[in-house]
Amino acid sequence: MTRAIVLLSGGLDSATVLAQALAQNFACYALTINYGQRHNAEIRAAVEIAKIAGAVEHRVVKIDYGQFGGSALTDATLAVPTDASDGIPITYVPARNTVMLAIALGWAEVVAANNIFIGVNAVDYSGYPDCRPEFVAAFENLARLATKSGVEGDPINIEAPLIEMRKSEIIELGMRLGVDYHATVSCYQADDSGRACGECDACRLRRSGFNEAGLADPTRYFA
Amino acid sequence: MTRAIVLLSGGLDSATVLAQALAQNFACYALTINYGQRHNAEIRAAVEIAKIAGAVEHRVVKIDYGQFGGSALTDATLAVPTDASDGIPITYVPARNTVMLAIALGWAEVVAANNIFIGVNAVDYSGYPDCRPEFVAAFENLARLATKSGVEGDPINIEAPLIEMRKSEIIELGMRLGVDYHATVSCYQADDSGRACGECDACRLRRSGFNEAGLADPTRYFA
Repeated sequence: MTRAIVLLSGGLDSATVLAQALAQNFACYALTINYGQRHNAEIRAAVEIAKIAGAVEHRVVKIDYGQFGGSALTDATLAVPTDASDGIPITYVPARNTVMLAIALGWAEVVAANNIFIGVNAVDYSGYPDCRPEFVAAFENLARLATKSGVEGDPINIEAPLIEMRKSEIIELGMRLGVDYHATVSCYQADDSGRACGECDACRLRRSGFNEAGLADPTRYFA
Repeated sequence: MTRAIVLLSGGLDSATVLAQALAQNFACYALTINYGQRHNAEIRAAVEIAKIAGAVEHRVVKIDYGQFGGSALTDATLAVPTDASDGIPITYVPARNTVMLAIALGWAEVVAANNIFIGVNAVDYSGYPDCRPEFVAAFENLARLATKSGVEGDPINIEAPLIEMRKSEIIELGMRLGVDYHATVSCYQADDSGRACGECDACRLRRSGFNEAGLADPTRYFA
């Protein structure tokens, strides 16, 4: 079986990507990065999802990244916005996807995985620069030059299968693949038990995704 | 003053790069990544060097990266080789420079630095893929696409001023800039007080650099 690293945040998108990679018969090495995000419940959700879905292995890598601040997701003094705004929002974590893919690249080299899956999405998203197809392509080019396997002619591919999909399409796909969305946590300020606020960008996108798909929303809200 | 992030390992090369960036009048934000390397003395050296040189700020970011293993620098069960070998050696840490630059990129965004300095070197080096000019260029391209500032037309440059220099040239440059090499630790298996083995690749390159430059080697050896 071909091996793949799957970045797994505990949210809806990455749970769907894991199911896709498993459906494509990859031996999946799930990887969660704990970068000091407020929503720690997401990390516990990732542990649960990796187990249920059948990942070969699941690792959580802690990185002391919150010390830089600069994002409402890692800095408790900044409020998570509850209304849509123009431009790149304050929930943007500087260089987050670059850091996560870099760590995934390291593990990919160690376990000889040829693919890294990431659940970034450029459509129903908040305008983060590191969720765009050109970012993914640039990282794939970097990966080819950065690694022993790339130098030896066996490069590591970056797979972003959700990148052009709407949230409702992602949910429909996940339902067909048997993803249990009840276990996933998308909220930027979920409480300790994983219940969602229903008001932040991530909650609103998720809720309207279930609505558009005509499916019951299994999210647990605290409001 | 224009701000720069300077990756500072505590070794000879990055101490020289910090001195260069300061000589170019950058306000320097020194960044050390603790990725579980064996040579912890290097990190203490970095703290010392940042202070002596006059960095505006110095941060140490800890990342739980050693759990992946795969390198003699992070896996205590693998011996550090003491003879030169062909190909990429076992001291190669998978995707290390990608991870370090990614973290530097995040901090650069937060403090609005337009430059990231890294002391990689492609000449007197051990054949690591992520020390080559094409790697640095690919990361710079990625940085342009990955960040808010890049999207807004103010990209972050990656500066690798040592990349084409021989070790002896780096040392001569550093001596002119007043770098105190006594404080630096290059050894892959330095002891707790920072004394060097004199036998690993890093020690041999460093020693022959001082020899070629015709300068006294200030390194403290334990043998």
